[in-house]
Amino acid sequence: MKAVGLVVEYNPFHNGHAYHVEQSRLASGADVVIAVMSGPFLQRGEPALVSKWARTEMALAAGVDLVIELPAPFASQNAEIFARGSISILEALGCSSFCFGSEDGSIDPFMEAYYFMTKQQSSYDAALRTHLSSGNSYPKAASLAYQELSNGLKLVDLSKPNNILGFEYIKTALHHSFDIIPATIKRIQADYHETQLGAQPIASATGIRKALAEKGSTISTIKQYVPETTAESLNRYIRTYGSLHTWEDYWPLLKYRLLSASSAELAEIAEMEEGIEYRLKSMVLHSTSFQDFMVKIKTKRYTWTRLQRVCVHILTGTYKETTKKLQESPSYLRILGMNDNGRDYLHQIKKHISLPLVSRLASFKEDSIHADIQASTIYTLGLKEPFQSLLLKREYESPVIYRKMV
Amino acid sequence: MKAVGLVVEYNPFHNGHAYHVEQSRLASGADVVIAVMSGPFLQRGEPALVSKWARTEMALAAGVDLVIELPAPFASQNAEIFARGSISILEALGCSSFCFGSEDGSIDPFMEAYYFMTKQQSSYDAALRTHLSSGNSYPKAASLAYQELSNGLKLVDLSKPNNILGFEYIKTALHHSFDIIPATIKRIQADYHETQLGAQPIASATGIRKALAEKGSTISTIKQYVPETTAESLNRYIRTYGSLHTWEDYWPLLKYRLLSASSAELAEIAEMEEGIEYRLKSMVLHSTSFQDFMVKIKTKRYTWTRLQRVCVHILTGTYKETTKKLQESPSYLRILGMNDNGRDYLHQIKKHISLPLVSRLASFKEDSIHADIQASTIYTLGLKEPFQSLLLKREYESPVIYRKMV
Repeated sequence: MKAVGLVVEYNPFHNGHAYHVEQSRLASGADVVIAVMSGPFLQRGEPALVSKWARTEMALAAGVDLVIELPAPFASQNAEIFARGSISILEALGCSSFCFGSEDGSIDPFMEAYYFMTKQQSSYDAALRTHLSSGNSYPKAASLAYQELSNGLKLVDLSKPNNILGFEYIKTALHHSFDIIPATIKRIQADYHETQLGAQPIASATGIRKALAEKGSTISTIKQYVPETTAESLNRYIRTYGSLHTWEDYWPLLKYRLLSASSAELAEIAEMEEGIEYRLKSMVLHSTSFQDFMVKIKTKRYTWTRLQRVCVHILTGTYKETTKKLQESPSYLRILGMNDNGRDYLHQIKKHISLPLVSRLASFKEDSIHADIQASTIYTLGLKEPFQSLLLKREYESPVIYRKMV
Repeated sequence: MKAVGLVVEYNPFHNGHAYHVEQSRLASGADVVIAVMSGPFLQRGEPALVSKWARTEMALAAGVDLVIELPAPFASQNAEIFARGSISILEALGCSSFCFGSEDGSIDPFMEAYYFMTKQQSSYDAALRTHLSSGNSYPKAASLAYQELSNGLKLVDLSKPNNILGFEYIKTALHHSFDIIPATIKRIQADYHETQLGAQPIASATGIRKALAEKGSTISTIKQYVPETTAESLNRYIRTYGSLHTWEDYWPLLKYRLLSASSAELAEIAEMEEGIEYRLKSMVLHSTSFQDFMVKIKTKRYTWTRLQRVCVHILTGTYKETTKKLQESPSYLRILGMNDNGRDYLHQIKKHISLPLVSRLASFKEDSIHADIQASTIYTLGLKEPFQSLLLKREYESPVIYRKMV
């Protein structure tokens, strides 16, 4: 059996994702579609709208055959670490290829960008330092340095977040000489950051979340842009757990932690650099909501996403020292869900894979999975009781979701 | 001017307290009554019903002339440390005597108990160890050891919490050869732990709090047992800040902290001993309220009060190492409120006292006051917004309450 791998967050699963699953299967000629998916906290430093279990259900309903969790130390992290974790997991699972969506749908500009950057590393590093020292954020400085060097060449535009991710996927695969082959398909409509919902059935996840966050909006507001199973799943989640999850639900905990931890403790938090802990501690005193806090702490130097990730690290107690070691490479494969096809595939590869497959927390005693348990536990605290205890129970019982194929 | 000192919590100020103030003034012949009062978290390991400012107003209204804050490292602590902080502050303020309420109203059984215990220290220590090793809580073991040794002697009964406090006050004064003279007055009615409100105008603070905590109860439920100014002050507090403070308001934060901190971190928390951090971490997972949690963690080995104090330490981030040093002796005198009389007294003693008088946080830059700021800041988190920000503003602006005498 031949497998294609996708790197996903499904927050929530929408029509563009369904197209991605379908086209990846077609283009790769694979028998199995495997998704490696962030758990409770996402790459942009946000809690997922719904639990990883609910998002796994959406994925399986739309034809994904196997869903594996991206461990927490890779999930709420910059593009490089996020890509390292994701592509390493797809390689470990024996995927022949991985497939991501891009503007052009052409892999060559990405590959060429990688080879170009490998050759130009020292000039790039020098340019990057220059732009960083002028007070730019890391992504901005990286983009400026890259533009200067690649001026006139036909390389991929790395000022777009989605292209950065694609580039990092390829970098991981090629740098580690993985067997997995990079591929991309052309995205349809909806820019990554497009936030206005249009008349077409395709909208970005950002646009969908924005619409959901608006006052008085219901799931039917976004019905046009998601498969029926997503709408049903979101509605069921609200019925079962009382609400979707937003950063504001965690604000009292984040505020408490920022007020109670010393600056020295905060300095040890992952991605906390250059003394921003002092800025955070002083701004939190007069902030009355997460949004208010974010606006107050934002500077040219740090992107919104980076600051949100720092907030996730504070909330989940993710420290530099412990996390760095865990970020070298994934050490297990946690199964969130599968259908018959996914199960057959696992059965086939089981003896050939080097990482342990984890289907139940109780039967996997390695310390390395602690960060996932911690993140999932803290994620439940965004709900009110009795929903909080209900989701916590779900997290600890953790039976893999199995979907019978029809 | 001659001053008498009282050790108080006023949670809330009731008719028994008014009697205590009045009788202490009479019995001592003092011109000034000074109260050293716990701030936001109390000796029994509970958040105060209302802020220290509101409780200061109640005290001044009832005739206390000067209110000084007992620093946080002494407040939510066992009787020995609580007494050490309180009596040291009253000594530093130049009080001629201190006066506490007791069953008998006679100081001799306390003094004799102190002298007896000083002589019998090694036999007492041995008996204490024996009773501790049979699994008794510290207060229980101490009481058993004391009873054995004092059998037949006319000493104070140290199985009663209030007598333990009185004994520790005296121990502090005599052990340090302070100039301050111990005195006691007879308490009227209401045992310390009496929780049923009766027909008399005197009830214990515990009974009053219990009545307030009952569903549907209003301030008028307790009107009979408190001065009018207390009832008014409590009502005004609810109008201004939305609610009184109870442990349940801090439960989400305590739960979050217990879930996010590692066992190793928790082991460093003040009063955390013998590995109870493991018990706390495992029990919190399935607890849905503070009350539920307390019932689950309670064992014969630890008193309810001790466990509540550990919870305060976790909530406020109070660690063994930093706290121990601060508990040696108070290093400042923070004024919460005064009337003209109190002000005149301060003016008189100002040049003779060795500890700095603090009337504004902004003008006192010593690290030692950080624990007070931290406790007061975290105390505000029990309120909802916009009340939380309102109380926080009050804490940081911190003007001393001044009451004009009429």
